[in-house]
Amino acid sequence: MLTYNFENVDGPLYEYVYKCIKEDILEGNLSTGIKLPSKRSFAKNNGVSTITIQNAYDQLISEGYIYAIPKKGYYVADITDFKKVKRPEKASMDIKVPVREEIVFDFSSNKIEVDNFPFSIWARLMRDTISNREGELLEISPCGGVYELREAIAEHLSSFRGMSVDPNQIIVGAGTEYLYGLLIKLLGKDKIYCIENPGYKKLYAIYKSNDVCCKSAGLDEQGVVVDDLRKVKADIAHISPTHHFPTGITMPVNRRYELLAWANEKESRYIIEDDYDSEFRLNGKPIPPLQSIDACEKVIYMNTFSKSLASTIRISYMVLPRHLANRYYEQLSFYSCTVSTFEQYTLASFIKKGYFEKHINRMRLHYGRKRTQILQTIRNIFSNNECEILENDSGLHFLLQFNTKVSDEYVKEKLWEKKIKIVTVADFDTEKKKQNKHQFILNYSNMNPDELENALKYLKKII
Amino acid sequence: MLTYNFENVDGPLYEYVYKCIKEDILEGNLSTGIKLPSKRSFAKNNGVSTITIQNAYDQLISEGYIYAIPKKGYYVADITDFKKVKRPEKASMDIKVPVREEIVFDFSSNKIEVDNFPFSIWARLMRDTISNREGELLEISPCGGVYELREAIAEHLSSFRGMSVDPNQIIVGAGTEYLYGLLIKLLGKDKIYCIENPGYKKLYAIYKSNDVCCKSAGLDEQGVVVDDLRKVKADIAHISPTHHFPTGITMPVNRRYELLAWANEKESRYIIEDDYDSEFRLNGKPIPPLQSIDACEKVIYMNTFSKSLASTIRISYMVLPRHLANRYYEQLSFYSCTVSTFEQYTLASFIKKGYFEKHINRMRLHYGRKRTQILQTIRNIFSNNECEILENDSGLHFLLQFNTKVSDEYVKEKLWEKKIKIVTVADFDTEKKKQNKHQFILNYSNMNPDELENALKYLKKII
Repeated sequence: MLTYNFENVDGPLYEYVYKCIKEDILEGNLSTGIKLPSKRSFAKNNGVSTITIQNAYDQLISEGYIYAIPKKGYYVADITDFKKVKRPEKASMDIKVPVREEIVFDFSSNKIEVDNFPFSIWARLMRDTISNREGELLEISPCGGVYELREAIAEHLSSFRGMSVDPNQIIVGAGTEYLYGLLIKLLGKDKIYCIENPGYKKLYAIYKSNDVCCKSAGLDEQGVVVDDLRKVKADIAHISPTHHFPTGITMPVNRRYELLAWANEKESRYIIEDDYDSEFRLNGKPIPPLQSIDACEKVIYMNTFSKSLASTIRISYMVLPRHLANRYYEQLSFYSCTVSTFEQYTLASFIKKGYFEKHINRMRLHYGRKRTQILQTIRNIFSNNECEILENDSGLHFLLQFNTKVSDEYVKEKLWEKKIKIVTVADFDTEKKKQNKHQFILNYSNMNPDELENALKYLKKII
Repeated sequence: MLTYNFENVDGPLYEYVYKCIKEDILEGNLSTGIKLPSKRSFAKNNGVSTITIQNAYDQLISEGYIYAIPKKGYYVADITDFKKVKRPEKASMDIKVPVREEIVFDFSSNKIEVDNFPFSIWARLMRDTISNREGELLEISPCGGVYELREAIAEHLSSFRGMSVDPNQIIVGAGTEYLYGLLIKLLGKDKIYCIENPGYKKLYAIYKSNDVCCKSAGLDEQGVVVDDLRKVKADIAHISPTHHFPTGITMPVNRRYELLAWANEKESRYIIEDDYDSEFRLNGKPIPPLQSIDACEKVIYMNTFSKSLASTIRISYMVLPRHLANRYYEQLSFYSCTVSTFEQYTLASFIKKGYFEKHINRMRLHYGRKRTQILQTIRNIFSNNECEILENDSGLHFLLQFNTKVSDEYVKEKLWEKKIKIVTVADFDTEKKKQNKHQFILNYSNMNPDELENALKYLKKII
């Protein structure tokens, strides 16, 4: 008869009984096929209630340690496979989490300033969403995103980017990185994807991690070179024609048509247009996107609210040509939308009520002033001869080209000694052809002009 | 000299001038290399200001329609590639968006009831998050998710699932579907992934769309058959041992050890444990997850808040064995976390303040009552002989096995005539071996018992 010590039991009694029997089974004290005492005699023997034993037996049955034969009783199950599992001898390893570098000043940070996010409006709209839309919030969002949000985006694209888009062409997702993954599934893994060189390095990592062939094409002063696309036999050209990172090039209209003509030559060819900071053109009207002059449905337009609103709002979208939208709905609509309905409805009303436009306008003014101030700071320290500023009234970064004999690597190292981080255009060139043109990137969206002054003065000493 | 008609111009004048010149260039009225009039004379001739012309010229330069030669003037750029782009003749196609079926009653819906989501608490925590955490909200979340949330999840797993987990082993993402994609990148596309048959069909679609080899293994009454895993040479077994969908099987402990022993035989082998509705075991204590008895770090545990909280909160997580967590941080940490920080912080305080546990307990009681009521409704209509109820006190669905001679297809068709949707276990069997066992699935989480009564009465007539 099983007898356990019920003194000082912590927690429910049945759990204690369950644990005791389980251990006896695992340790082999109770072997396969042995009949357990009846609930009643077990209970009596241990001075507990039958219900306690019943619950313990039920739990052991659920987990498969014992089994019941009706009208006969309870038996120990065969758990001999327990012995097949080898216990590891080594202690479990440490986890090495990537540590963020400690930085005193960062020329390359593209964070947005905290003060500029319209928290109170966002909070109010979120509250409204929660109180007025209980029903819709718990409806599962269509695969492409909540229709209301896609409608709002379509209206925004029409008035702001001159694009004529059906809301159903728009697919909303949690970040452009996620959407790239979807696109690869849509366009095919057998295609050759081509990115710009120099260009946004993460793209290469993303394509590689998706196991697709990723090549790169060079740039001239007009942007990506179409002959390079031909050389690498690209199917998909992934570009940012409005404001290339890091060079800042805006692709002129003729190159745009050349690219469209290239895409039109073969059915498999497409252009992914990453319009990531088009909202922040500081003078004149925005450059029309490639998508708006694409009559043959070869351009996939992508943009994100992470850049225009807040880096941690993970809402991006892509605009598919109609035939690709159909392919998407046919082949990939089983994927759930990755953005919560809370945020989709909140963003939809943020756009529809005009707050997004206001925010963009306010930010454009703000960045314009900031840019002027920063350019002035640079000019106060460096003469035209020492430092040329390469910029085109657009976006949140520009380039500083220094007239110096020291190498870029030396400059970077010396700055890093003071925990000042700076990167060069050459850092984004996978072929490292354009080394030592001394073009340094200045991302000013989150920059403090006073701190910049100190950093620049130190930089001046080095070069 | 260019002359345009400035009557009835809508919008800024410079935009009008820009459009007129642009069209003249595209239509060939102004050909490549032609010198444009100076700003001053153009302005005078058309009765507008020089600034207007300046702005129009600047915009045309930005977009690449014209170029300036310092001290000489403005010239029409070469845009002959415009003509290379063929215009499509066909009208643009319609987009066929998947239409949701109109359904009167659905035996298979797994939506959660709107009334049960703690909207007011969630709204309050969201408000607190926005007002107290402005700074953190705009910090970019670590790749695995905000630490605070991962800490909260680790505590929850410890007290609720008996799992001992370092928060850094937890990776947060926008839905399990997204996390499967990450896992494939982590474990490798060359591996053979194996799902349960019958099983959750979407998994097959997800693996296929990720272009990996996906096989299936059969089940016996203890769950997935280990010999089947060997037969298909599986590397990764993707299973739900706590409560299998659709059969409802809970895997007994011996099969669990057999599986772990299988995984231990080869370095490439892993088990993905999908613990999707373990929160809703209605009697006894929860079944310990496979992960908690895995001493050799072969189990990847996955769960989601979409099931336990609200279907539209897109927050899921996986718990990686330590060596895989390290591999993740080394190889995939460039991927940004797909969940917005707003929702991550809100969920973190929802868990830390005990609301999640309360919610789960409340829902378990609620579902328990509902289940009893629904079982009673079934028993009022069907005798034991007509309909056997297959259930195991767990999760949000069970099975009805009818004693009937009519085929499952006939039953489904007849019900569908009245817009009543029902699915069978066989529908989830890709090999269709177990046809016509007449096992129908009843998902009760969002079911109205009165409507169920009507649907069951109609069903009774059919069988």
